[in-house]
Amino acid sequence: MTKFIRYHHQGRDSYGILDGQTVRELDGDLFQHRETGATHKLAEVKLLPPCTPSKILAVGLNYGSHLNGRPAPAAPEIFYKPVSCLIATDEPIVIPKDAKNVHSEGELVIVIGPDSSIFGVTCGNDVSERDWQHGPNKDLQWWRAKGSDTFGPLGPAILTGIDFSNLLLQTRYNGETVQKQYTSDLMFNCPAIVDYVRQWVTLAPGDVIYTGTPGSTKKMNPGDTVEVEIEGIGVLRNRVA
Amino acid sequence: MTKFIRYHHQGRDSYGILDGQTVRELDGDLFQHRETGATHKLAEVKLLPPCTPSKILAVGLNYGSHLNGRPAPAAPEIFYKPVSCLIATDEPIVIPKDAKNVHSEGELVIVIGPDSSIFGVTCGNDVSERDWQHGPNKDLQWWRAKGSDTFGPLGPAILTGIDFSNLLLQTRYNGETVQKQYTSDLMFNCPAIVDYVRQWVTLAPGDVIYTGTPGSTKKMNPGDTVEVEIEGIGVLRNRVA
Repeated sequence: MTKFIRYHHQGRDSYGILDGQTVRELDGDLFQHRETGATHKLAEVKLLPPCTPSKILAVGLNYGSHLNGRPAPAAPEIFYKPVSCLIATDEPIVIPKDAKNVHSEGELVIVIGPDSSIFGVTCGNDVSERDWQHGPNKDLQWWRAKGSDTFGPLGPAILTGIDFSNLLLQTRYNGETVQKQYTSDLMFNCPAIVDYVRQWVTLAPGDVIYTGTPGSTKKMNPGDTVEVEIEGIGVLRNRVA
Repeated sequence: MTKFIRYHHQGRDSYGILDGQTVRELDGDLFQHRETGATHKLAEVKLLPPCTPSKILAVGLNYGSHLNGRPAPAAPEIFYKPVSCLIATDEPIVIPKDAKNVHSEGELVIVIGPDSSIFGVTCGNDVSERDWQHGPNKDLQWWRAKGSDTFGPLGPAILTGIDFSNLLLQTRYNGETVQKQYTSDLMFNCPAIVDYVRQWVTLAPGDVIYTGTPGSTKKMNPGDTVEVEIEGIGVLRNRVA
């Protein structure tokens, strides 16, 4: 079991292994690296999104508890988020121009390794503007609803070498739990999602897939602190600006 | 007026300036470069997609002739194509698994420069599987319909320093014209699209925006040769495998 992070320290971006509160610096990327021997205290580095995907995919309607009367899909329902929406833990979610109904969606996120394998998992917040997604004047596709700048919080760390089929996922607004479910309730689990997608769309190492959100979601307001926590991975924390 | 290409030659990918049938090699990228003094014959290099976007956007329903009874949108209708679908001129379009109704969409494509400016334009084919897009069993979003591998032909060259508001756009199947319209018929023109998108989604230098397709489109069949030609830019030619 290893926890990988990406961070900025003294003018440089690096990958590292997180060992308690200690960061062990890596030379290389997630998939090919060696330890340099240098270490930092976690509190002294600025965390970045834990990988640099060439693309971001996401799954809709993947927990029975989120269907809200809609029929369960026969196959994973996929969409894209642009890489420009990625932010790290501790970076602010900015409510965009004209947005009136922005929700958080706490999610388990798959990180792809070489040969479309699953390298590890992290936490994600699939931030969504519900009026642009579903309202009477909704857009044709979810490009703004799911893709506005800062709508892709990701991190804090990538966890490898664990069984991620039954992890507790929780979302909190200002400390109050608003989503709570086990990843065992995913209708399409991580291997099934990857096997489905790669029949049409080639996945590159470092690409990420947000796997869907459970239950009902809630509007965020400026000043709120939103936390997505997954057992064993850590807490992805973003303030709403 | 300059024509930029990207190409592979003797184990290396480079940008170049196309001058008739001569390629003048550049050291650097589209935005910062100098000529090395080396030249090649166009026939001796393998053309690549003319830039390496961090993301690909596209506009739907942007010619009155393509609406087919649908109401004209009040604002540009944007969607994403994944970078994994990009192919160059002369590379094959591959009909994916289970696809039955794959169409070509010839389009003018914007290439973004520094500070969200419009650097230049090229030709694109927004390849689309109509059953996944609109059929009775359509996907929730257009991820496969517009994003399957090879569904993003782009090129052959990026043209800068021209007025691209009134260029003739033509699509041909095996030499027969199937789409023919001037870019002056775009409902949202290039500056309007860029100004709209950047209110929510930051555009990076090298990002591309397919601006929409005119008229009605036609199913492609294996063995077909599809050409998208825009006046002054050149011909984007792909065979269907």
